[in-house]
Amino acid sequence: MHVDAIVQHLLDRQDEIVERLCTFLRLPSVSTDPAFIEGMRDAQAFLVDWLERIGLSDVQLLDGGGHPAVYGAWNGAPGKPTLLIYGHYDVQPPDPAEAWVTPPFEPTVRNGRLYARGASDVKGSTAIALETISAFLQIRGACPVNVKVFLEGEEETNSPSLRPIVQRYGDLLHADGMISADGARAHPEIPTINVGSRGIIEFEISIRTADKDLHSGRYGGAVQNAAHEMAKIISSLHDENGAIAIPSLLAALPTVSVSARADAARFPFDEDAFVKDVGARAHGEDGFSIRERLTLRPALDVNGMWGGYTGFGGKTVIPSTAHAKLSLRIVPGQDPEQVSDALKVHLRTVCPPDVQLSINDPETGSRAFNLPTEHPLVLAAKKVLSEATGQEPVLVRLGASIPITVIFQELLGIQTLMFGFALPDEDIHSPNEFFRLASLAEGLSAWPRLLEEVGKHSAEEFRSLSAAAEKA
Amino acid sequence: MHVDAIVQHLLDRQDEIVERLCTFLRLPSVSTDPAFIEGMRDAQAFLVDWLERIGLSDVQLLDGGGHPAVYGAWNGAPGKPTLLIYGHYDVQPPDPAEAWVTPPFEPTVRNGRLYARGASDVKGSTAIALETISAFLQIRGACPVNVKVFLEGEEETNSPSLRPIVQRYGDLLHADGMISADGARAHPEIPTINVGSRGIIEFEISIRTADKDLHSGRYGGAVQNAAHEMAKIISSLHDENGAIAIPSLLAALPTVSVSARADAARFPFDEDAFVKDVGARAHGEDGFSIRERLTLRPALDVNGMWGGYTGFGGKTVIPSTAHAKLSLRIVPGQDPEQVSDALKVHLRTVCPPDVQLSINDPETGSRAFNLPTEHPLVLAAKKVLSEATGQEPVLVRLGASIPITVIFQELLGIQTLMFGFALPDEDIHSPNEFFRLASLAEGLSAWPRLLEEVGKHSAEEFRSLSAAAEKA
Repeated sequence: MHVDAIVQHLLDRQDEIVERLCTFLRLPSVSTDPAFIEGMRDAQAFLVDWLERIGLSDVQLLDGGGHPAVYGAWNGAPGKPTLLIYGHYDVQPPDPAEAWVTPPFEPTVRNGRLYARGASDVKGSTAIALETISAFLQIRGACPVNVKVFLEGEEETNSPSLRPIVQRYGDLLHADGMISADGARAHPEIPTINVGSRGIIEFEISIRTADKDLHSGRYGGAVQNAAHEMAKIISSLHDENGAIAIPSLLAALPTVSVSARADAARFPFDEDAFVKDVGARAHGEDGFSIRERLTLRPALDVNGMWGGYTGFGGKTVIPSTAHAKLSLRIVPGQDPEQVSDALKVHLRTVCPPDVQLSINDPETGSRAFNLPTEHPLVLAAKKVLSEATGQEPVLVRLGASIPITVIFQELLGIQTLMFGFALPDEDIHSPNEFFRLASLAEGLSAWPRLLEEVGKHSAEEFRSLSAAAEKA
Repeated sequence: MHVDAIVQHLLDRQDEIVERLCTFLRLPSVSTDPAFIEGMRDAQAFLVDWLERIGLSDVQLLDGGGHPAVYGAWNGAPGKPTLLIYGHYDVQPPDPAEAWVTPPFEPTVRNGRLYARGASDVKGSTAIALETISAFLQIRGACPVNVKVFLEGEEETNSPSLRPIVQRYGDLLHADGMISADGARAHPEIPTINVGSRGIIEFEISIRTADKDLHSGRYGGAVQNAAHEMAKIISSLHDENGAIAIPSLLAALPTVSVSARADAARFPFDEDAFVKDVGARAHGEDGFSIRERLTLRPALDVNGMWGGYTGFGGKTVIPSTAHAKLSLRIVPGQDPEQVSDALKVHLRTVCPPDVQLSINDPETGSRAFNLPTEHPLVLAAKKVLSEATGQEPVLVRLGASIPITVIFQELLGIQTLMFGFALPDEDIHSPNEFFRLASLAEGLSAWPRLLEEVGKHSAEEFRSLSAAAEKA
């Protein structure tokens, strides 16, 4: 049966699909707050039941020490690619509850929008993925590809158990690629495919210039001041334009490709409005547009600094210690460890030898995410989206970090295509979160076609195309 | 009767003098804590009674809105100079009480040391002054000079009422000079005379680079960061040696005199130990010794700085605001207003035009204190101390600020000679504060001779010598 019939089947049953999604949304699966542990357990039970009813096998909870992930597989397409299907069932807390027009866990449709905590992030798009698989199995008796559904329970708490789970269940999760229901669309009218995001490493540094804070009358003018020394260290990080001034940190960077710059230029982006909307001032590396600085170039920011007396009024001390928190957003081609070493060497070089410097080793840095633009997942998405919209999709890259993509790439060697249908204005993490019913329909049209498109490849072909794309 | 007899009279009555001092020390006159209000009142009543019994007239409390000062005068030497005699009757809190070997308000003599809160700071030296006046009046029926005793009750709380009191009672306090029982000796074996201390102005500055803190993933690399901008501003204040790098701030500075440098060199001062004792690193203006940097040159210190996230762990924000507290120690020849303006101009110049800078106007700055080395009070002290010790006194200057001297100079036009007999190791403001009985004896020998020496001048002569010294 043609995929069009699958899509039509789904679109004919939108009321039923919304109803099922509402049942999912009524479960208050807030992962950040132990008071909601029942809501988490109810959501797990609901999903286990759902996956079993769809017809997935091996349905189980994958335990990594925290909230478990929910897993289920369909392996009925031998010789075809196997795709992990990622979603998450946990949601942000609903506070402030009184700011909601209708209660956060009582889903309500108003003006074509489904209001509920988690509707946009990301139960709505997760439901699209599950309904798609369900329709294939119900109508055709088979999916175009093998699928392994993986629904995380700690996305909203920075995924502390994700690495342990993926390591522990590596064999079970083995796949050729991943499609994620998470990752919002970048624009309401223009189809976009996310092919990159920056990685991040974080540091905290402290310096000491004396055993204790000293009286500025008794010592002022004759001894070092930790605040002055920290200011000099921080000042050494950037040039007068705000560009990173540590050559060793930029040395290993590949030149930004012409195509990546063309992608950046294609995405409609009002630079003036972007900066003015938050009362900020543009700043940064010469020779790059703001959009390029945000997505294609590394950024080093002091996230916090402090030293000496910071209370009310004056206190005439010479601070003996000063501190700074730093984060470095890194781009494809930068190795977190190498970059981290380069930053440490720089800090030790600029810090005067008689000032004690301690650098707390960064937690595991996160590599940049880079999905090759010729990857079969990207080509499949391009085809589906351009047919659906009549427009060539724009390849976009994010300035922020998506650790999940990097964890799966690192531990399972697979790429992730983000294929969520949320939009950026849907108040995720805020009161009155909503998901557009129009987006639900768009997703229900696109997901079956995407799986169908990927299923046109044999597993072998998919792997070799993937490998070729990585090398290019 | 020769002054030797006055001194002998005092030295013969040390037990009785210590007993009276102990009565004074038993009164818990802690000005910083309202719980001790009774102790403050008891001390005021005790001093009023004491001054009256000595034979002073016009004994009264001088009210400036806070704890009053105690006042009493003897004006029986027409044609002779009139000296204000400064002391303070308030003391620091005794905490931590359990750290005292004997209770803070139960004075106890051990090994020639009188232990009690306030013994060294400054009831001991205040008693020396009062006993001196008492002895003159009792034995000779007259003091060598006119005296106006002024005992402050708020020295330990930064003298908030001192200006109002001196302004309100200006006529009553009119005098030709002041001798202070406060101001410790600088060295146990070498006689010293304090002829200067630095003044101070304080600032708080804030900058803003955006309406709110921004996400470092979404904005990093493209917008200004308040922590970076503040670091640059702070870095602009000093050169690589730690010397002030604001030419306009140093422009008006007179050259440090050869004699002042010679004085600094004469005072035994172990530069290495000074720095190493507190684990600090030497730093500062080229061409000046540490002692000179501390006492003869201005010092600009950031006392505190902060911006962005300073809590536990990481938070990937771009701070939109950053703050710094600054204090500038100034030296004779620097006008607080001019210097403050120069600093403001510098800050506005180095701050990029698109960064919002706000400078909170300094509270009333305090000028440096400068007692001319040829001032008759200095010459009198030199003579007395060199005869007592067989050594030429060393003229010393302090790095810290003594606002009291500046207030009396500004409002009454008089100079202050600090003639206290405390020593720097007597644990003032700490548990187990003590005053050496040997210092009491030295003070009882020196104070009568000092008054006698000043009394050799007529008032007219004293004033013209003072004026000449100021001009030199």
